[in-house]
Amino acid sequence: MLDILHRIGATASPDAVYAALTTVDGLAGWWTEDTSGDAGVGGVVRFRFIPGGFDMKVLDARPGELVLWEVVDGPEEWIGTRVTFELKQEGDYTIVLFRHEGWREQVEFMHHCSTKWATYLMSLKRLVETGKGEPAPHDVMISNWH
Amino acid sequence: MLDILHRIGATASPDAVYAALTTVDGLAGWWTEDTSGDAGVGGVVRFRFIPGGFDMKVLDARPGELVLWEVVDGPEEWIGTRVTFELKQEGDYTIVLFRHEGWREQVEFMHHCSTKWATYLMSLKRLVETGKGEPAPHDVMISNWH
Repeated sequence: MLDILHRIGATASPDAVYAALTTVDGLAGWWTEDTSGDAGVGGVVRFRFIPGGFDMKVLDARPGELVLWEVVDGPEEWIGTRVTFELKQEGDYTIVLFRHEGWREQVEFMHHCSTKWATYLMSLKRLVETGKGEPAPHDVMISNWH
Repeated sequence: MLDILHRIGATASPDAVYAALTTVDGLAGWWTEDTSGDAGVGGVVRFRFIPGGFDMKVLDARPGELVLWEVVDGPEEWIGTRVTFELKQEGDYTIVLFRHEGWREQVEFMHHCSTKWATYLMSLKRLVETGKGEPAPHDVMISNWH
């Protein structure tokens, strides 16, 4: 199992976090401003960054509980991998258990994507807590690979 | 292979990054202020946080190249796991390839530690670039687990 795992908690409702994961406006508020497409189950969402991007097919979406994507276009290492956001409430927090699973090799790019996902999930936390995230192209630079 | 992977790049020399990984003062500048012990090969470094801490045995340390620790005390899930910082230069950047390997299960705590490592590695980057990191207890809060 070559998976990238993360866990954040945001002081916001599961519904607010779910909206940030299942609407084009919400996704554009924390991952990349250049987001388009259909964020409903069966739809494909297109995320674009300066060097390229990812197309995600929405395989499952259960309000306040889970969002599951499959990568249908993007860098070769990503195609066929899956991204899951599992939500649950703990006190004042909505916990997001994140998994990007199905990597074929522990390549250097996987190391990079793991750190980058962490900073984007912190951007998601900031968005639902304060109304303002740090989506690309305003994202945190972590290295020479951006 | 249940490993936590990360990659950061800092505009600082490999020697500066190596010093931040192999001296008590350096480590206290980005991971936790409450760091003590012997950071040389064969030594044990004690890292303490409000809820507990970790003891790391330094298995290997090669200037500007690599630092390898084994966790000899701490939370049960961490004992026996290994932490590697691999360094290399790319242009103006020193790249840190990070691996925390040997987790036995993909428990929720592993998700948490992965995100937390990312924020501490960003603190390491800040320390070597600006002279000031964000070590515990001044670290970034990512959830209800701190």
